[in-house]
Amino acid sequence: MNDTHFLKDFLNPQSIAIYGANNQYATTFGTFLLMNIMTYGYKRNIYPIHLKLDKVLGRKAYKRIADVPEVPDLVIIVLPPKVVPQVFRECGEKGVKNLVVISGGFREVTGEKKNTLTEEICKIANKYGMRFTGPNCFGFYNAWIDPANGQVFNMMVFAKQRKPGKFSLASQSGTMTSHIFADVDHHDVDIGKTISVGNEANIDLVDFLEYFKEDENTKAIGLYIEEIKRGQKFIEVAREITPHKPIVAIYAGGSRAANRAISSHTGSMAGNSKIFDAMVKETGIIKTHYVREFLDLAGILSKDEVIYPKGRRLGIITNSGGPGAMIAKNAERKGLIVPELSHKLQEKFSTMMAHTASFTNPVDLTFDMNIFNLYVNIPKILMRSGEVDAIIIYGIFGFKERLSFIDENSEVAKYVELPEQMIENDLNNMDKLFIVPTIKLSKKYSVPIFYINPQSYANEWSNEIRGYGANVFSLWDRPVNALAKLCEYAEYRRIHS
Amino acid sequence: MNDTHFLKDFLNPQSIAIYGANNQYATTFGTFLLMNIMTYGYKRNIYPIHLKLDKVLGRKAYKRIADVPEVPDLVIIVLPPKVVPQVFRECGEKGVKNLVVISGGFREVTGEKKNTLTEEICKIANKYGMRFTGPNCFGFYNAWIDPANGQVFNMMVFAKQRKPGKFSLASQSGTMTSHIFADVDHHDVDIGKTISVGNEANIDLVDFLEYFKEDENTKAIGLYIEEIKRGQKFIEVAREITPHKPIVAIYAGGSRAANRAISSHTGSMAGNSKIFDAMVKETGIIKTHYVREFLDLAGILSKDEVIYPKGRRLGIITNSGGPGAMIAKNAERKGLIVPELSHKLQEKFSTMMAHTASFTNPVDLTFDMNIFNLYVNIPKILMRSGEVDAIIIYGIFGFKERLSFIDENSEVAKYVELPEQMIENDLNNMDKLFIVPTIKLSKKYSVPIFYINPQSYANEWSNEIRGYGANVFSLWDRPVNALAKLCEYAEYRRIHS
Repeated sequence: MNDTHFLKDFLNPQSIAIYGANNQYATTFGTFLLMNIMTYGYKRNIYPIHLKLDKVLGRKAYKRIADVPEVPDLVIIVLPPKVVPQVFRECGEKGVKNLVVISGGFREVTGEKKNTLTEEICKIANKYGMRFTGPNCFGFYNAWIDPANGQVFNMMVFAKQRKPGKFSLASQSGTMTSHIFADVDHHDVDIGKTISVGNEANIDLVDFLEYFKEDENTKAIGLYIEEIKRGQKFIEVAREITPHKPIVAIYAGGSRAANRAISSHTGSMAGNSKIFDAMVKETGIIKTHYVREFLDLAGILSKDEVIYPKGRRLGIITNSGGPGAMIAKNAERKGLIVPELSHKLQEKFSTMMAHTASFTNPVDLTFDMNIFNLYVNIPKILMRSGEVDAIIIYGIFGFKERLSFIDENSEVAKYVELPEQMIENDLNNMDKLFIVPTIKLSKKYSVPIFYINPQSYANEWSNEIRGYGANVFSLWDRPVNALAKLCEYAEYRRIHS
Repeated sequence: MNDTHFLKDFLNPQSIAIYGANNQYATTFGTFLLMNIMTYGYKRNIYPIHLKLDKVLGRKAYKRIADVPEVPDLVIIVLPPKVVPQVFRECGEKGVKNLVVISGGFREVTGEKKNTLTEEICKIANKYGMRFTGPNCFGFYNAWIDPANGQVFNMMVFAKQRKPGKFSLASQSGTMTSHIFADVDHHDVDIGKTISVGNEANIDLVDFLEYFKEDENTKAIGLYIEEIKRGQKFIEVAREITPHKPIVAIYAGGSRAANRAISSHTGSMAGNSKIFDAMVKETGIIKTHYVREFLDLAGILSKDEVIYPKGRRLGIITNSGGPGAMIAKNAERKGLIVPELSHKLQEKFSTMMAHTASFTNPVDLTFDMNIFNLYVNIPKILMRSGEVDAIIIYGIFGFKERLSFIDENSEVAKYVELPEQMIENDLNNMDKLFIVPTIKLSKKYSVPIFYINPQSYANEWSNEIRGYGANVFSLWDRPVNALAKLCEYAEYRRIHS
C-alpha cells in the first residue's frame, strides 16, 4: 500500500529538478541544498534550472523546466517567494506532480491569516493536480531510497549518519529534521526519514503520519509540533498508529513567548498546552519537552528489537551507592516503582556478594571486583524472579581503555602483575561472556536493560554493547527519564493493542 | 587562614603511608588506589605497609608503620574493618595525625545506629588526637598540591583532567567524586578538589565546607548529600558561603527507595525532601536532581570570570525557529522571562535582517547567511538595550569541519567557488571577529551568553569559544535549565551580599 501513497515520489524521486542553486557556496541556500543532495549520495538524474548558467555544480543547467528532457519526479524551489507562482505554472504545464517549496517569506512574514501568495500557489497546484510541501521548509532526508548502493536522498542533514534506521520524523521545524542529527557519535538513533513540513500549505503532518503508518521501514515516529491543522483527523490517525508504532512528540507551543516565536516561525496559530496534553493522553503519544530525551526515545523505540516492559517495577543493579540512590529517587519521582525485593531473593543475593553489599533494591555490589555478578548473575536472577519489569545497571566500564592508560604509564605498569588469563581470554570475549547471555534473557523475559558506563557515550565498550541492541548511557539521568516514558507507553500499548 | 586548617595535610600531604596495596591489579582495591596516586603524578614520599612483601609497585614496603622513617602526613587504610582498630593504635603510637579509612563494612552493613567498630576507632582517634575521613570512602583528588610541576594527589578520579580548576566537591558518594569526571571531553568543568567523606564518623561535610569557604582555589562548591549530620552548623556555614561562593547540591534522599539505598550505602538515616527543600531556600544553595545539570552548573560557576545576570529576562537569538520556540517555552516553564522586545528595538532589527526574520524575541534570523549579525551585531544591540539580562544564541557552527567534509567529497567541491577572502581571513580569525568583542561586552554589561552549537560538544569551534570563558552546549535543553538556576542564584546573591 505504501508504494501507491502519493508521498512515495516525494521521498523516492527517480529524478529531481532544482530552482535556485548556482555555484556560490556559503551565500546561496539553493546551492547549499544541492551540494547536500550530491554529497550524500543521490545518484539519479538532477536537473538544475538556471536562467544564466550553463552548468551548476558540474551538472548541465536548463533555462526553464520546459527544456528538461523528462518530467522530474520532484521539483525543489529555492527562489524568492514572488516568483514561485510563475514557477508553479510552468511546472504544471510540464506535467510535474510533486514540489517542495523551500523558500520562506510567505504566511510567516505577513502575519495575516489570509495570505494571497500562499492562496495563489495552492490554487495553481490544485488546477494542475500538483502537491507540495512547504513553503518555508527544509526538505527531506531518506536513507531508504537504495540502501544496497549507499544512496541517500538528503537535502539537509549535516553529518554522515551510521546506517539507514527505522526512525522517521515529520517536523514543523527544519532544525529538528537536520541539526539535531549533526552529532552522530553521541546519540544512538539511526534515522530513516526526516521531513520538514514548513507552513503546510498543501501537505501536512497528518499526511506523513498516514504514510509512516504503512511504511515498513518506519518502526518509530517522531513529531515536532507547533500547531495541528486537522485536529480530528490527527487524533484518528495517531490512535490507529500508537498501539503498533510509537509516536514521540515535542510540542513547542503553549507558552507566551513560544507562541510568539511560533507565529513568526511557521505563521501558525499556536495552540494551548492543555489541549495538547489532553490529546496526548487520548492518543498514546509519548510527549517530551526536551530534544535530548526525544532523541533517546527515538533511539530506544526504533531499534530492530524493542523490549517492552510488562510493568513499571524497576530493578537497580549498581557497584556504587550514590548512583543507586539517585536512580531510585528519580525513578520514583518519574512514576516508576522501585520495589523492595523479596526476602527469598535477598537471601540468595547475600550468599553471592561481598559483606558490604546490599540487596534490597538497589542491589549494590559495592567494590566487589566480581563483574560477572554485575553483568550476568544478578540480572539473570532478577529477571527470573519476576519481581521487576526493567533493569538499570550502573557501573560498567571499558577495561581496555583503563588498561591502556596504565600501560602507557610505564613507571607503575612494570610493577603490576596483570592476571594473564583475564587479559587473554576475558578481555577479548567480554561481549560474549558478559553481554550476549544477558541480552538473550532480557528478550526472553521482556525485561529491558539499560546500561550505564560513566566513560564517554561513544566509548568503545559502550558501542560494542550497543551492537547487541542494548541501550547504553554515560550518566544516569537520561536512562531513568527515558525508561519512565518507555514504561508509560508500554502500558498504553498493552491496553490498546 | 586556610594553611592552618586541620584539613590542609589531608589534601596536601608531604608523605603518605598506605595499608592494603600489593602487586595484584584488578583484584585488590588498595593496589588500584595506590596505582592511581602514582599514575597521576604524586611525586612525594610513599610508604606502602605490607606484612609480607618487600616491595609494592616498586616502592620499598614496611612491615609496620613503626618502621617508616618519618611520620607520614597521611595514612590511607584499605584493610578489612576488623583490623582497623589495631592499625589506628599503631598509627597513634607513631604520632600520625591524619587518616583515611577507605574500608567499608562498618555502620552501613550492621544497620545499627550504634556500631561498636566505628565507636572503637573514634575512641582511639580521640585518644591520640587523630582525625580521619571515612570509613567507607574513596579518598581525595587535589589538583592544587603543586600545579607548577604537574603534581596531582589523586586516589580515585579515573581520567586525566584538563587542568586544575576551581570547582571543589565534597560528597557522601565516592562515585560522585570520581566516575562523573571520567568523560573529560564532554563536560566543561575543571575540578580542583574532590573529597569522598564516606560514613563521616569523624570528619563530615561541614568540615569541608569550612575548609572550602576560605580556600582561594575554590570558586564554586559541590555537595552530594544523603544526610546532614550537624544541621544547624551546616545551615550557618552555608549561609556564610553562598553570598560569595555558590554551592550546588544534589540531595539523593527523600524517596522510599532512595532512603532504603542510602541506609545501606553510608549507613545514614536519610532525611526528608521537605526539610531539605526548606534548607535550600534558607541557605541559597542551588539544588538539582540531575548529575548532568550538577556538572553544567559546576562548570559555569567555577569559571575564572563568572558573569552573573542582573535579572531573569532572557533574550534568544537564533537562526532557526524551532529551537527558538523550544528555548522560549522551556525558559518560561523554568521561571525565566522572555520579554517581547520594545518597538524601538524591533524597528532597528528590521533594518538589519532578511525579510523572513522576526524580531519580537526570539530574534530569529532565519536562513540569513550574515553570521556577523548572529554573533556580534544582534547580541551587542540586545546587551546595550538593557531589555534582557541573559542571552542564548542558537545555531553557531564549526565551519572548518563543514568545509573539510565538502573538500573530501571532490565530486562536488571542485565545482564550487569558495569565497577566497572568507577562507583566508575570516576562517582563521573567527574567534577574534565573532567571539572576542561579544564576550567583552558580555562582561561589561554583566549579561551572560550561552552558545549552542548542534555539532558535538567537543567540537573544535565550541572548544575555541570555551577558551574565551564562554559557555557552549550542543543542544538547547541543558543551557536553558542551567541558566534558569544561574538566574535564581544570582538573585539570592544580589539580595544577600
